[in-house]
Amino acid sequence: MNKLIDFRTEPAAYRHWKLEFDGPVAHLIMDVDANAGLFDGYELKLNSYDLGVDIELYDAVQRLRFEHPEVGAVIFRSGKENVFCAGANIRMLGKAAHGHKVNFCKFTNETRLSIEDATENSGQTYLCAIRGTAAGGGYELAVTAAHIMLIDDRKSSVSLPELPLLAVLPGTGGLTRVTDKRKVRRDLADVFCTTEEGVRGKRAVQWRLVDEVIPPSAWTEKVASRALEFAEKSDRPRDATGISLHRLEREITETAVAYRHVRVELERDKRRATITIAGPADPVPASADAAQALGANFWPLAMARELDDAILHLRLNEPELGLLVFRTEGDGNAVLAHDDFLAAHQTHWLMREITHYLKRTLKRVDVTSRSIVALIEPGSCFAGTLAELAFAADRAVMFAGKRTGDNRAAAAIMLGAANFGAYPMGNGLTRLQTRFLGEPETLAKAETHKAEPLDAEASAELGLVTATFDETDWNDEIRIMLEERASFSPDSLTGLEANLRFAGPETMETRIFGRLTAWQNWIFQRPNAVGEDGALKRYGSGQQPVYDRNRV
Amino acid sequence: MNKLIDFRTEPAAYRHWKLEFDGPVAHLIMDVDANAGLFDGYELKLNSYDLGVDIELYDAVQRLRFEHPEVGAVIFRSGKENVFCAGANIRMLGKAAHGHKVNFCKFTNETRLSIEDATENSGQTYLCAIRGTAAGGGYELAVTAAHIMLIDDRKSSVSLPELPLLAVLPGTGGLTRVTDKRKVRRDLADVFCTTEEGVRGKRAVQWRLVDEVIPPSAWTEKVASRALEFAEKSDRPRDATGISLHRLEREITETAVAYRHVRVELERDKRRATITIAGPADPVPASADAAQALGANFWPLAMARELDDAILHLRLNEPELGLLVFRTEGDGNAVLAHDDFLAAHQTHWLMREITHYLKRTLKRVDVTSRSIVALIEPGSCFAGTLAELAFAADRAVMFAGKRTGDNRAAAAIMLGAANFGAYPMGNGLTRLQTRFLGEPETLAKAETHKAEPLDAEASAELGLVTATFDETDWNDEIRIMLEERASFSPDSLTGLEANLRFAGPETMETRIFGRLTAWQNWIFQRPNAVGEDGALKRYGSGQQPVYDRNRV
Repeated sequence: MNKLIDFRTEPAAYRHWKLEFDGPVAHLIMDVDANAGLFDGYELKLNSYDLGVDIELYDAVQRLRFEHPEVGAVIFRSGKENVFCAGANIRMLGKAAHGHKVNFCKFTNETRLSIEDATENSGQTYLCAIRGTAAGGGYELAVTAAHIMLIDDRKSSVSLPELPLLAVLPGTGGLTRVTDKRKVRRDLADVFCTTEEGVRGKRAVQWRLVDEVIPPSAWTEKVASRALEFAEKSDRPRDATGISLHRLEREITETAVAYRHVRVELERDKRRATITIAGPADPVPASADAAQALGANFWPLAMARELDDAILHLRLNEPELGLLVFRTEGDGNAVLAHDDFLAAHQTHWLMREITHYLKRTLKRVDVTSRSIVALIEPGSCFAGTLAELAFAADRAVMFAGKRTGDNRAAAAIMLGAANFGAYPMGNGLTRLQTRFLGEPETLAKAETHKAEPLDAEASAELGLVTATFDETDWNDEIRIMLEERASFSPDSLTGLEANLRFAGPETMETRIFGRLTAWQNWIFQRPNAVGEDGALKRYGSGQQPVYDRNRV
Repeated sequence: MNKLIDFRTEPAAYRHWKLEFDGPVAHLIMDVDANAGLFDGYELKLNSYDLGVDIELYDAVQRLRFEHPEVGAVIFRSGKENVFCAGANIRMLGKAAHGHKVNFCKFTNETRLSIEDATENSGQTYLCAIRGTAAGGGYELAVTAAHIMLIDDRKSSVSLPELPLLAVLPGTGGLTRVTDKRKVRRDLADVFCTTEEGVRGKRAVQWRLVDEVIPPSAWTEKVASRALEFAEKSDRPRDATGISLHRLEREITETAVAYRHVRVELERDKRRATITIAGPADPVPASADAAQALGANFWPLAMARELDDAILHLRLNEPELGLLVFRTEGDGNAVLAHDDFLAAHQTHWLMREITHYLKRTLKRVDVTSRSIVALIEPGSCFAGTLAELAFAADRAVMFAGKRTGDNRAAAAIMLGAANFGAYPMGNGLTRLQTRFLGEPETLAKAETHKAEPLDAEASAELGLVTATFDETDWNDEIRIMLEERASFSPDSLTGLEANLRFAGPETMETRIFGRLTAWQNWIFQRPNAVGEDGALKRYGSGQQPVYDRNRV
């Protein structure tokens, strides 16, 4: 599985999903092409999915938000007669490398959370209309919807059969959404998750697994009217026109991935990628309409799309680059001006979308299992939104003073309103709130310094950076730090970062990435699941799996 | 490593710890006997520890609470000159089976939480006086204390070198206490956890890693005076006399472990253990003093000690028994009477201790990675405290009606005040609150039925049991359920249960068992740590570990 995985797609190229529009209601129809798997060696039968199916889903969810301001409700449904969705493809899981499985699940989780984000923050509510079986990942997808409807035809059902069938977990949010979102009673959840055939009809409502069951005679009409109800509550502008998310341009070479505002340098011998983000080159538009006219070329959106793609590309295609170094270049005031512009126009649907997309992209950075270092140097623009990258980093190191022969001013961090609320992490707190959990007074103090250029001394004093070095020490200190980081065991760094990055409160989101994912990763290593005689390998072979019976 | 592990010990038998008493202050002195490891093949140098050291620590913490009401503060310190504690023994970890490592860490975590429980709920505050290095598990132990003092002698330090040295995590609470309890800034925590040599002197205070540093000249005096300060704030009765925790009597045979109130039947072919708990045979004592006169024979305490020992025995010595079946026998009213007695005398130090011990024992059940089923049958006494076992179970199944030829009344659950507050789980909620997260009205309704015998129909109606069967179906249904459970992959059950048992809020405690432990378990499987060329195996060999550089 080492062909290049490309996250860029568009509806005309979809193999697995169809989008249909009916005024304020969109239909997102899953109709997986069994022969169009991302890799060879498996068929995507029964609407089962692999990463390729999820890449299209992610694209569709993004386009619904940006290209369809008129859509207030989205119905998930199946394009096949007897199955809603059979979940992740088992033969694919059985063959995939551990790292691919984990990153596939992570991306799936992020997409599912973005569906909930659209419902919660963007006036675009997802419903799920289940006809046929929704099994495993199929039910995990359904449960991202705000409202689940199940046809009462004596055969359609919901189930999480991963444990009895495959000896793994409903690990892409399933268990967490059953307990935290649907609040299913724990002993019923236990029965549900250990019963292959699942639950159907009224019992599915009684157990809180779905919101309503509908007789077949009323199905089509009821699904349509329910979707309209949700759409009518939406605050999205019905008469607005969307923007087009054009295909991202990028150039990939052996040593770099270059976009317009984002450039990734790959140093494989040093096991690191340096991501340099250019600040805005243009002034802020005159109005929200002028910004909309720029469409996907408007700097905050263009930058977010490029950074999003770069992170995904590195995760799936460059697994040995364990260290991401963030750099920025440009004018901090221009970044803050764009932040302020977005903040001032949050009543405009597109500006709101862009802000939430920036939020989601920064969250994608947070859960990326690579060590992250921000280098804050002369010429950089770690201000407002871009300063979040320094606060997302495991360490941020700042250059004190100027470089000999460099006319540019000393590096400065600039805080803006965006650092104090616009971009909550998965734990519901801002990165600065999380950073200063033990010192709320330092947080309050930082807020009094908004829009000031904070040099190395001031930034260190305010606790915004990990260390500062002047020209005498910078090169050696940075080299040693990056070399040392790259020398550690990748697995232990993954575990360390997953624990240190999310202090403070837990949410459904942090529980999915922290608790559920960690257990699934553990199980994905265990011979009972992935060994030659394990359940994932033996599924469908007619042979029963053989289990080591020791409990740990 | 398959000799019988016995959790019973007493101070006269300690090899690794010393207890000294100075009025209201106790000294708990770690002085590990390098040649007294629990297994062969390693030396416990530098106050490093294995499960045997922790068994003594657990015993000491328990005895301090029950045998020493006069002690208001406990000082952790080292009996060796240049080292406080070097953490878990690395050669032991390198040789131990996965299951032993995981259960060792779990028990260590429980003991550390019990230290914090003593500080928080029992007026017995732990301080830590660090002279020498507190490395890895040594610092993880220190950070359980409410107050950490570090001598400023230019060599004593605190460190978490697991990641750089061993490619594993500070996985017994270290990372979580650094972020959640000490609230260390995340980038400083990152530096701290990747720096072998650790932090000393004033920086350790600035980084929030310790509470104060003390010059050597003032060390002894300052430690003593600080401990006295904490002891003086204690509400424990200085003039009371403790009770003696006599050695638990038990008889182990091939098929059973028998205590006085608790009997464990082992059915290895069915992979299950049935734990039957007998309710109180005696009426409640006339007064708290009369209860104290019964000492460790007072039913609630005697039962808790036996259940505690039984669970630990099963975890470490019977790893293939994946299913625990809880049964009870006796009079539910007698259980409720004992609950009410304890509740009425919470101002008595010993009654308070017993209640907290019951709480901790029930928590030990919660985090035991075995499937748990409660069978509620005629003659049982699932009432109050013992009903908590049914709510701790993954499933509770109830017999409806009477058995032919059995004169005993139909089974009944009885709720009492103890079910509504006395025994919070690790998530801070009661088991019933957690159970009814989605239906708070059901919780309120249950509370109106306290002290009523609730038969199968009423219990099902109130959502207290998973299923009910009458005599016609009981035997077959139970047999099928237990056989099916025992047929599933143990690992996936462990992951499932770890997710379903702790819905609702997260606390430092749930994060330790859910998030940190899961990541550590994952890393404990990875070749980078435990492979032949991994860091745990190669440590001390002079050979560098070889890492697979792929990030997952």
